[in-house]
Formats: sequence, C-alpha cells, structure tokens
Amino acid sequence: MTLLMPLSGPVTASRRSDVAPFIVMDVMEHAARLEAAGARVIHMEVGQPAAPAPLTARTAAADALARGQVGYTAALGIPSLRARIAKHYQEQHGVEVDPERVVVTNGSSGGFILAFLALFEPGDRVAIAAPGYPPYRHVLSALGCEPVLIETRAEDRFALTPETLRAAHAEKPLKGVLVASPGNPTGTMMDRAALVALYEAARELGLRFVSDEIYHGLDYAFPAVTAAEIAPDAVIINSFSKYFCMTGWRVGWMVVPEGMARTMERLQQNLSISVPTLSQIAAEAAFDGREEMDAVKRGYETNRRILVEGLPKVGLEHYLPADGAFYFYADVSRFTGDSHAFATRLLDTVHVAATPGVDFDPFRGKQFLRLSYAGSPEDMREAVERIGSFLAKE
Amino acid sequence: MTLLMPLSGPVTASRRSDVAPFIVMDVMEHAARLEAAGARVIHMEVGQPAAPAPLTARTAAADALARGQVGYTAALGIPSLRARIAKHYQEQHGVEVDPERVVVTNGSSGGFILAFLALFEPGDRVAIAAPGYPPYRHVLSALGCEPVLIETRAEDRFALTPETLRAAHAEKPLKGVLVASPGNPTGTMMDRAALVALYEAARELGLRFVSDEIYHGLDYAFPAVTAAEIAPDAVIINSFSKYFCMTGWRVGWMVVPEGMARTMERLQQNLSISVPTLSQIAAEAAFDGREEMDAVKRGYETNRRILVEGLPKVGLEHYLPADGAFYFYADVSRFTGDSHAFATRLLDTVHVAATPGVDFDPFRGKQFLRLSYAGSPEDMREAVERIGSFLAKE
Repeated sequence: MTLLMPLSGPVTASRRSDVAPFIVMDVMEHAARLEAAGARVIHMEVGQPAAPAPLTARTAAADALARGQVGYTAALGIPSLRARIAKHYQEQHGVEVDPERVVVTNGSSGGFILAFLALFEPGDRVAIAAPGYPPYRHVLSALGCEPVLIETRAEDRFALTPETLRAAHAEKPLKGVLVASPGNPTGTMMDRAALVALYEAARELGLRFVSDEIYHGLDYAFPAVTAAEIAPDAVIINSFSKYFCMTGWRVGWMVVPEGMARTMERLQQNLSISVPTLSQIAAEAAFDGREEMDAVKRGYETNRRILVEGLPKVGLEHYLPADGAFYFYADVSRFTGDSHAFATRLLDTVHVAATPGVDFDPFRGKQFLRLSYAGSPEDMREAVERIGSFLAKE
Repeated sequence: MTLLMPLSGPVTASRRSDVAPFIVMDVMEHAARLEAAGARVIHMEVGQPAAPAPLTARTAAADALARGQVGYTAALGIPSLRARIAKHYQEQHGVEVDPERVVVTNGSSGGFILAFLALFEPGDRVAIAAPGYPPYRHVLSALGCEPVLIETRAEDRFALTPETLRAAHAEKPLKGVLVASPGNPTGTMMDRAALVALYEAARELGLRFVSDEIYHGLDYAFPAVTAAEIAPDAVIINSFSKYFCMTGWRVGWMVVPEGMARTMERLQQNLSISVPTLSQIAAEAAFDGREEMDAVKRGYETNRRILVEGLPKVGLEHYLPADGAFYFYADVSRFTGDSHAFATRLLDTVHVAATPGVDFDPFRGKQFLRLSYAGSPEDMREAVERIGSFLAKE
C-alpha cells in the first residue's frame, strides 16, 4: 500500500465553514455523562417531541417498505404529497394554494438552503430577529449572505417590527427578511396585524419575505397566521418535524411564489436529487393522523400550564409570553450574568437540562434560558420542583 | 382575508440559482407519456438499480419503525454506523480508517455540499473531468466556486491526468480537484497508478483532493482503488445508493482528513441537523446483506456482457471501456451530431429511453449517449434488438 503523506501540512477548513458550535450540544453530552453515572435527567434542552409520528404515517411507511424498492422521487416531491400539502392550507387556513407552488424538502433545513440560494446573491443582507434559531445566521453566512441580527423587544413579542426593519434598511440596504412565528427560542407569536404590518413594510422596501412556520399547529394563545394568507410572494418554510412529531424523518415543505418552483426543482435536482422516499410517503399519511397529534398538542398545553403556573411560584418570574411551539424562554438575569454556567449548575445539581440563551442571541443570551416542554406532564411537575430547589440555593 | 398584491412585480430567482435542467428529465417525462399510451419502454436513462435494498436493511428499518419514535441522531451520524463504515475499509481495502473520520451524509449529494463548503472559499477554482456528473459543476457554482471543466481523452480512460491538471493550474491557479472512479457517465475507472499519479500532482500543486467513490463495489474490469489507501488528506465521498441499491433512502458517507470532522459536524448541525434516522439504521444493516448485493452485481455483469457483445453486432461499435458502475457511454457520432434529437427518436420509434451526453459534457456531449444497464438481462437483450432495428433505419 502506498500511503503518501500530505506535502502541505493538514487540510485547513475554509473560513466560511467556521460556524459556531451549538452550546446545547455540550449540555447534551454532559447530560449523557450524568445519565451514564445513574442520574435521572429531565430533558428540557432539545426541541424534539417525545411522541412518535402518527400511526397513520408509520403504517404507510411500513407498507411501502414491505413493497420493496425505495427509489428516487421527483425532485419537487411525490405529486400526491404536494397536493395534500396544498389541501392542508385550504383546510387549516381557508386559503387556496396551487400544488405547483409546493416543494417538498429535506426538513425545514433543506428549505432554508433552497430559499436562500434562490432568493439571495452572495453579499445580500438578510434581516433576522435576535433571539432566533441559530442556523438562520449560520446557513446565510455559509452561503455567502450577511445575516443582519435585529434586537427585538418583549413588548413586540420578540418579533421584528416595521420600525426596526426600516431602521436596519436605512443603515445599510437589506435584500430580505426572515420571520418566525411561533418563534424559537421564545415561543412568541406575531398576530395577524403584526405580520401584515411587517410584510407591508418589507414590500415597500422591496425585500424578499421568508416565513418560517415550522411551529404552526402548536399555537395556544391565538391561531397562527400563515404568510400564504397575506403574502403571495413570500417563501414559506414548514416541516413535519414538530406538530407531526417527525424530526428524524427529515421531511418538510415550502410554498414558493408562482413561477419559482422551477428554480427550486433545478436546485433540488442538483443539491439533493430527491427527499427521502419513505419519509414522503409517511408525511402524506400523517395528515390523516391529526387527531392523534392534537392529543399530543393538548399534552404540551398541559405542560405549558404547569410551567406558567409553577415556575413563578418557585422564583422564576420573568419569562416571555409562551404563545406557541413548546418553548419557555426564561429571563434568569436575577440569578446570573452567565446563562451557560447557570445551565451547567442546573444540570449538575438537580439534573435538569436546559439550553443557555447564548445559542440564540449574541446580545442578551447570557440572561436567558430556553426550557423545552415537549416532554411528559410528570416530568414538567418534577422539573418545577427541581428548579425551585435549585433556585432556593442560587 | 387580506391578500396583498406584491408591489414590485414577480419575485425573480437569484443568478446563482440559474442552473441548467437535466435533459434526462425531459426523456423521463416523454417515456412516461409513451407508457401512459400503452408502450413498453425499456428504461436505460436513469442511474438507479432496479433491485431493492438488501433484506437485512429493510428488516432493520421495519424493526426500528415498529419501536415508535424516530428522532434526530448525532449530526455526524449514528456512532455504530460510523464504526461499521470504518470497518468496511478494513474488510474491503485492508486500510485502517478511524471512525472519527467518518461523516454520515444525506446521500453523496449531502457530502458534496459539506465538502465544497468546508474545503473551498467563494471564487476558488475546482478541476473536474468532462464528461462528468452534472451536479459537480452546478453545486460548485451555486456555492460560489468556479468549476473548471477539463476535457478528458478515451486513451486516459476519460480521467484527469497529471498533465491536464498541471496545464489547467498553469492557466489560472486551481484550489482543488475532484475525481470519480468508476465515473459517471463513462463507467471508466482509474487504476492505482493513475490515481496515485494524479494525487501526487495535486499534492505538488497544493490542491485539495476530493474522490467520489459512489460506484465502488461495482467494478468489473479490475478492483476499484479508494483514495483512503493513498491520500490521507483526501475527502472521500460515497453512498449507499448504488452498490447497496438504496437510492431513495438518501444516505451516504464521507471519510475526511483527520481533524476535519469537527468542521463537518458544525456544518451538518446547521445545514441538516441530522441524516434520516431509518435510513442510517438500514444502512448499518446493509453491510450484512453483501451476499444479496453481490448477486445483484453479477446481474449487472451479465447485462454488461450482453451490451458489450451485442451492441457492436447491431452497429453501435464505439463505446468507452465499461469498467465499472452500470453505464455504457456510446459514441453515436457516426449517426448524429445531436444526441438529444437522436435519443428522442430512439425513444419514439423503439421505446428505448437513454440519456443524451449533453447532460454530462458541454464539449462533446452531442456525440454521446449514456445507457444505464441497471435493469434486467431480458431488458438488455431486448434493448440490443430494438437499438439494432433503430440503427438499421438511421
């Protein structure tokens, strides 16, 4: 065997691939070590439902598996799945969406890659809210765009507003804006008026509008509004991961402006060929499992009530309005100026795993902690107790 | 409902997303129309095995499905799968690969995205062979790199050589080079001496070396050589799609230089979260189904013999050495100067679907036709007959 040594030293990674790691990964590894040593950890760090996909979805996948070959599909997705997704907009929001505008993606992650590539050129500035989901800025950067983080305020439900958007654009022109409602990590939602106002501002400024609706279906305070109702030229990103409990299946979708599906098709042909076939088949059947998923959602509502009522009693009084999703974003500035160290102590002493806000917000993340309530009500009650006993000693 | 009309006209796609469509898609649609009208089409246009994944893989997926929740995995892949892939290099090539260097990906497609982002900056020039797999150049372009197509020669088995690489670098400096053996669409392979010579040239020029080994396992002329044996600093891309017949599962892997897995992990966390879980579980079990897959491979060998012996007798004398994969790249310049029109006639008159070379080679593609022999021996015999009767009238 001829094993040649590289001449020019180790292969270094490109600058653009130098993205920050998720702190939550450290938390998860730490939790795993504690569990290996016998601790019972309550997991509130991961944004993942504990329930499985609806039985309808799992049965459809099993049936497809039994039939044998699992081949490529059309790049835009299985036509009947695209039609079923379009119908969902009629059923859920009373809005007509042409199936031709639906693009099946590798989870919402795959949707962001396609959307950013199709909408933006290298160097384009795209506004996003802080706090926000970290891959927004990391994927934009990796694809050569400039994420423009705009600090949001509690009184705006931690959403971008026409004013903050205009101010950022005035400073240096933007090319697009991304909104998420319900948002991660805050769980806050934009109501119809807020979404319409922001879209109108974006329209006036000539910005492309991307709406991340991955937590749709998980709304407690008021019904979530889809951009499909108000913005025909928005790119909407969604997924089967959250409401339908299908994280590990990696299947999601986009609704794109008329005429843009062809661009997405060519990108997807080259970047992915197609989306996992069994996952697409399961996803189509998942729409018949809404009753099962609504029961799971009611469980989150119970969990949310336990936290909203319980945590203030044990000392955690400041939290953002937990309108939707399954996140509780707590202001821990009364106790710490370093939420990462705080989360480490919380995990070490009472075995509750949570995500420090620094993953989501470079500005004020050190003051916040994200608690996911996608677990069981028993765990939530136990978590309130454990957090209380922890805070009593902080 | 407030449906606002966009102010600034339709949303136009970015320049970087303006990639050429695959001509083969037109062929497939055309074939589907003929089939809908009752024709029996022989499909030689798609690079997809007709056989299903090994039974071991399908059983493992079914078992996992029955267990319920299908959650995210670690970004780099399920640890036992990474270890199994590493072991495969020992078993198959007698080379030690540290499981820490293995990255599980969304098919080879996902591997290319990660590799190009991690290795290259925007503007970097990357050498690839023409003819070649079209996504190489389209994905490089979409990610801001410049694909440098180098015309290859039949006497070099249609591979890049140290001479052509040095010449391209002298013209304008390159940053990397991508090789594929067996290659698509040619099916030709580089032997050990050719691969070592090219790697040494790349090393001297300071280029990053990417080796697409997706058709490994499907070698007929001589055993395929992995870059893992000779190039510790190469990025190797592979997949379960071809030898293991798992196209629609979308699972593949990379072997990356020591120390680079951490970069890939961060990119994958942000770009994908993780790779489809059922597909990873199935992939690990697929290694226990090699006997079944070797029988499939013997079927391709039979098919290859039928074409290599049969086609010259009916008039198609010029073809490239079909060393591996399941492609036969035929020179049809004796009959046509426009392989797309030729493929359309072939499909229309004798119902044999093939891919025009223009998908793979902007220089000489009009003279070539790619025939995939991943189907059944009966279909191959029938194809030889049909092609013969077609050529008799051309």
